[in-house]
Amino acid sequence: MPDPGSIRPARILVINPNSSRTVTAAIDAALGPLRLPVGPDITVTALPEGPESISSQQDADRVVMPLARRIAEDSADAFVIACFSDPGLQTAREAAAGRPVMGIAEWGILRALTLGERFGIVALSEGSVHRQRRMVRQMGLGERYAGSRPVEARADETVGEAIRARLITAARILIERDGADAIVLGCAGMAPHRMAIERAIGRPVVEPCQQAVAAALGAVLLREVP
Amino acid sequence: MPDPGSIRPARILVINPNSSRTVTAAIDAALGPLRLPVGPDITVTALPEGPESISSQQDADRVVMPLARRIAEDSADAFVIACFSDPGLQTAREAAAGRPVMGIAEWGILRALTLGERFGIVALSEGSVHRQRRMVRQMGLGERYAGSRPVEARADETVGEAIRARLITAARILIERDGADAIVLGCAGMAPHRMAIERAIGRPVVEPCQQAVAAALGAVLLREVP
Amino acid sequence: MPDPGSIRPARILVINPNSSRTVTAAIDAALGPLRLPVGPDITVTALPEGPESISSQQDADRVVMPLARRIAEDSADAFVIACFSDPGLQTAREAAAGRPVMGIAEWGILRALTLGERFGIVALSEGSVHRQRRMVRQMGLGERYAGSRPVEARADETVGEAIRARLITAARILIERDGADAIVLGCAGMAPHRMAIERAIGRPVVEPCQQAVAAALGAVLLREVP
Amino acid sequence: MPDPGSIRPARILVINPNSSRTVTAAIDAALGPLRLPVGPDITVTALPEGPESISSQQDADRVVMPLARRIAEDSADAFVIACFSDPGLQTAREAAAGRPVMGIAEWGILRALTLGERFGIVALSEGSVHRQRRMVRQMGLGERYAGSRPVEARADETVGEAIRARLITAARILIERDGADAIVLGCAGMAPHRMAIERAIGRPVVEPCQQAVAAALGAVLLREVP
Amino acid sequence: MPDPGSIRPARILVINPNSSRTVTAAIDAALGPLRLPVGPDITVTALPEGPESISSQQDADRVVMPLARRIAEDSADAFVIACFSDPGLQTAREAAAGRPVMGIAEWGILRALTLGERFGIVALSEGSVHRQRRMVRQMGLGERYAGSRPVEARADETVGEAIRARLITAARILIERDGADAIVLGCAGMAPHRMAIERAIGRPVVEPCQQAVAAALGAVLLREVP
Amino acid sequence: MPDPGSIRPARILVINPNSSRTVTAAIDAALGPLRLPVGPDITVTALPEGPESISSQQDADRVVMPLARRIAEDSADAFVIACFSDPGLQTAREAAAGRPVMGIAEWGILRALTLGERFGIVALSEGSVHRQRRMVRQMGLGERYAGSRPVEARADETVGEAIRARLITAARILIERDGADAIVLGCAGMAPHRMAIERAIGRPVVEPCQQAVAAALGAVLLREVP
Repeated sequence: MPDPGSIRPARILVINPNSSRTVTAAIDAALGPLRLPVGPDITVTALPEGPESISSQQDADRVVMPLARRIAEDSADAFVIACFSDPGLQTAREAAAGRPVMGIAEWGILRALTLGERFGIVALSEGSVHRQRRMVRQMGLGERYAGSRPVEARADETVGEAIRARLITAARILIERDGADAIVLGCAGMAPHRMAIERAIGRPVVEPCQQAVAAALGAVLLREVP
Repeated sequence: MPDPGSIRPARILVINPNSSRTVTAAIDAALGPLRLPVGPDITVTALPEGPESISSQQDADRVVMPLARRIAEDSADAFVIACFSDPGLQTAREAAAGRPVMGIAEWGILRALTLGERFGIVALSEGSVHRQRRMVRQMGLGERYAGSRPVEARADETVGEAIRARLITAARILIERDGADAIVLGCAGMAPHRMAIERAIGRPVVEPCQQAVAAALGAVLLREVP
Repeated sequence: MPDPGSIRPARILVINPNSSRTVTAAIDAALGPLRLPVGPDITVTALPEGPESISSQQDADRVVMPLARRIAEDSADAFVIACFSDPGLQTAREAAAGRPVMGIAEWGILRALTLGERFGIVALSEGSVHRQRRMVRQMGLGERYAGSRPVEARADETVGEAIRARLITAARILIERDGADAIVLGCAGMAPHRMAIERAIGRPVVEPCQQAVAAALGAVLLREVP
Repeated sequence: MPDPGSIRPARILVINPNSSRTVTAAIDAALGPLRLPVGPDITVTALPEGPESISSQQDADRVVMPLARRIAEDSADAFVIACFSDPGLQTAREAAAGRPVMGIAEWGILRALTLGERFGIVALSEGSVHRQRRMVRQMGLGERYAGSRPVEARADETVGEAIRARLITAARILIERDGADAIVLGCAGMAPHRMAIERAIGRPVVEPCQQAVAAALGAVLLREVP
Repeated sequence: MPDPGSIRPARILVINPNSSRTVTAAIDAALGPLRLPVGPDITVTALPEGPESISSQQDADRVVMPLARRIAEDSADAFVIACFSDPGLQTAREAAAGRPVMGIAEWGILRALTLGERFGIVALSEGSVHRQRRMVRQMGLGERYAGSRPVEARADETVGEAIRARLITAARILIERDGADAIVLGCAGMAPHRMAIERAIGRPVVEPCQQAVAAALGAVLLREVP
Repeated sequence: MPDPGSIRPARILVINPNSSRTVTAAIDAALGPLRLPVGPDITVTALPEGPESISSQQDADRVVMPLARRIAEDSADAFVIACFSDPGLQTAREAAAGRPVMGIAEWGILRALTLGERFGIVALSEGSVHRQRRMVRQMGLGERYAGSRPVEARADETVGEAIRARLITAARILIERDGADAIVLGCAGMAPHRMAIERAIGRPVVEPCQQAVAAALGAVLLREVP
């Protein structure tokens, strides 16, 4: 599908599976530094079929087939699923027919593995905590997982200033009580807070959308290598 | 240290800890697709103090302090240690004082985690196999590790055509007997064979230098994000 | 929803997420011994929206929302999802609003844990093998898992006599080469072969639908206990 | 040994390895819902050779040979060892010559795996906590284990009302501090408190004797299946 | 209990839980190098109540209480249980009231951890293999365990020359097929073959009675340290 | 290399990789009970090239090559590396050419595995805690590891009386909050406090230099066994 000989530049499509405009805009802003003059185009889109916030397993499962269809029909060179549940990641890969599909939880966590001994996740809610435990087990990374701590918020609330203090508190508990030494932000819209939290806790904080798109960028650049 | 406003562009320094020119040249060639017109400069250098091939734990440990000194004295914005033993990765990070340091084993393996359920490593020698088992345990990734299979070669032999058939055989055994479904090339100089092995075995094959430099590229681009 | 005071007896609904009549009939026959004169009613139904065979992750994900709707709308006291991918198990539990939902992979594997040190799974295809590895990791049971071996068949082919020899061969390889000492049949329609395989290999063989329904039976009987 | 054609109905023998009448009576009462008009007979008996309470490893080991003898000499179709140390489970299986033997810790824990991400155990004493850690490791279930919390009581004290508040406190600590989301009662006599604890903590609470006998019921019903 | 000031020298009692004189004599001979002129006395004794060979879990469990009684009644300063099932190790520790009790499987395996990346065990029989898997899981050492391979012999047959070739074959399979790089002899009577196997396979071979007694020696010498 | 027939007695060389005289003297004193009239000679030496305290990964890596040279040039029969980072253990083994090399962290931890279900480590500093987590993962012992707690001291401060209360506090937190039931002292100079801490917390406390030297003693005595 990628067609290096044509005029069309390579393109990375970032899909926010919820339909919150606030979150989509926050993701888009977070990706600025990865947009290079001659690099791949990076587009962020919401999934119209998605709920306002993905807060149950049913919310996550509900977007899988629409996501797969979107990917199958789009000519992008790589895809990023921008929800920390990584909904339908394997099905999306089947639908992408060989083109890279990156999950933000996956890449937020993998990057954290290189920044500390044990990562902790700032989670939206108690329900997310349980899903994250299942996800970390599925990834086979339990030995590096300090835990998740919830801030009890909806996805779209994570963007604003009001939540920053709670995010810092959760990160601090992960460091001090749970033994984390690197933090992953467990929602797609938390990028505006990354640096403030890092400064507050004195340990690396990973924004997962940035990591997944950076990984997609690398994969797109490397695709034609013999 | 990165200074986007100045004239000096960002720079990634890739250090080959062995002193083999053949391997250094092969690494350099493999990184072509990651060199963007306005992107960070990517330089590959050998470590003059390094041995011809790193084939024992002592070889790996011997290069740690020279590597750390090289990193401490260099003004690069990010570093890649281009030897599959990831020698001195933690010490290099201490020496880099906050600038990213990526190991090629680390990133080759992390990328493989996103391409299959269990990764296998094509290793240089039986000795490397033992060291890789220890490394994978240290990373806490044993649950995803199918195993390593040696081709019994020195680092500089991996570049030429002569070894390709043995690399394919090792990869095939990892798939068919050990249950791997993604392969990591366990030496810095194997890039010229990546695509041929992938075609021969029908499963993803990861070249670790490319992955570590792609990760360094992402880290450099994202450093200024608030 | 269960209403012990009414005349209606308790009811367990077994849903075959694929639409194969052959498989549905095989499941129904396998459950005979669990139908007690005054025990809960056990009904087996196919999911009309399901594909003929679930052989990709997309097939599995496609049935999740229809399954969840079916469960939410049905007044049964307990549910069994009769596909070895346990598609949508967590979402089904959310939809069941407290009523038990059992997965056949889950219960086939749990029963096997009590019959040997390491279980092996006779899988439909190479693709199922990969999904089973992911599932076993997600369950956190990797230490007890000897592996999966495929017979390369569709779900509806597993019912007939023609496949028995291949099932026995796969089970034998799991025992002799992979170190399993208990076998789980990795598809809903293999019940007619259970005893023949057990006799051939001399080790316990678990039929997963029977185990999940037995578990549902226990859960239904125990629900009213103070 | 089961003989469906004869007049004798199938029989499940539940053996309480301690000699406490209070505990034996509590177990017997807890099994009421599993006694079906035409189902297998369920008999609960104490082991006369057993101590009043099993509170050391020596107490547990002391009952193994008497248990094995009892099982070898009894014509029951299935057995349940009703002590949360699962004393002599493997030896009992050898003695049962193919008839099912279920341990209550084993089945309490397996059932909990289907009700949450991480189970916690309400333990009798600090000593039991250590034995439970060893047991959970032996089962290979450490990834799902949140921990055990002791109430510091003897087995026969667990039956009465006086202990309920301490059981609830221990369960709550397991949920809130240790990250459990399903609770297993770690002693055979705690059934009278199950529902009260469940209501108090708002998460599933598993009574292990009920689960082991339910599993034995399923195994007995399924034995004749071809 | 140790009383360095008195005339009685410290004493280590090695108990062979089976009653085979051949095995007891082989153990005794293997311990020669650990008998120092002024060091602790090292006595080897068989357990009269023990069976000829411990080849089932029931055999292992049967000796636990006699072992515990023997230990409680003996004034030795440390004990070694010289059967590779480590029968009753925890109960023996309770009975020893603070005096060290060492298991030979435990110490054979711990020593092997320092000699290679993955240990393999030469086992007596297929039944021992299953028990060893359970034991290694209970020790939490599964990540370092390559596997066990049986020679299908009784304990007393392991002493003679006839079995040497089979022991070497089993060790070689553990190295070449299972990926072990250190071997543990899985029975108390195999000491006479240790060096011959080591020479044949070119990797370290551990005799477990020697290791357990060496550990007991260290523990006895260190007991008086403030 | 050991030559039992010659006049020269066997010799164990204990190398303290830091250059602190206080720590070297504390190690020497702790080994008194292992010095037997006719046993191997036990010599403790500091590494002149070592830093005052090993408190970063770079400190640990810096001593590896000097350690390896010292070992290669010395005729001792066995070596002990007396720093809890076990710096260069594998390289030291290569340099020792078959002679045993024991690490104190390794043996302190292995001994603790036989004294409780979960070991905890009293660490020098927060930095050591992170290195210990990596080391325990590399050993594959995470399932038995309760955690590490720092006292925030330099190596040479651990010898004096002033620190005892902080050591006891750290050990107590490991027991009460982290679930340890055996404690390892995480620095070479803490021997003078061992018994006092053990008495204060009522659980076994392991001094790692003593354990490593005891293991070296056993290895030296057993080397000549056929």
